[in-house]
Amino acid sequence: MPVVVATIRTKPGRREDVLAAFRRHTPAVHAEPGCLLYAVHAGEDRVTVIENWADQASLDAHSAGPALAALGAEIAEALAAPLDVAVVEPVPYGEPGKDRLPNT
Amino acid sequence: MPVVVATIRTKPGRREDVLAAFRRHTPAVHAEPGCLLYAVHAGEDRVTVIENWADQASLDAHSAGPALAALGAEIAEALAAPLDVAVVEPVPYGEPGKDRLPNT
Repeated sequence: MPVVVATIRTKPGRREDVLAAFRRHTPAVHAEPGCLLYAVHAGEDRVTVIENWADQASLDAHSAGPALAALGAEIAEALAAPLDVAVVEPVPYGEPGKDRLPNT
Repeated sequence: MPVVVATIRTKPGRREDVLAAFRRHTPAVHAEPGCLLYAVHAGEDRVTVIENWADQASLDAHSAGPALAALGAEIAEALAAPLDVAVVEPVPYGEPGKDRLPNT
């Protein structure tokens, strides 16, 4: 269950183009084996994707797969900074239910 | 239901100190009105917190509240870069259930 937080900082005026690419490719990502969560969010200067994968093999397959390659190619020119893709581990503190993503 | 992704880049060797501060203060954050999710994660060079708040007023109260002030003071010296706190909006594409955090 690797959790991934991908931060895509967008050039001024290009965020909607990046979101459109995610709209096109997210269904294929959701259909990939082991995809538990791939949730796209929009911030002022960025698109942030919160992901959860069943296991490392699923994440590895996604990282090497055609949907991500197509998406990456389509958004490359709209990036204001290098992609920041962090693989992170849940460290649940406090109240169960508020302390972690589902399925982690 | 504002979603927040807070990225805390930690100095080499200081990540465990930052996690310890989150361990101390996360229960108080979970008890704040409108806190739906406050999930701490550890990455190689960072601590990442994924948050969901019932409404903007809850997030504003948290941002101005004592738990965050205490946490911020305790971790300040361990940061490798300024805090990156992004308020983001769900943009659900694709398969329901995989497309968004719960309660968003």
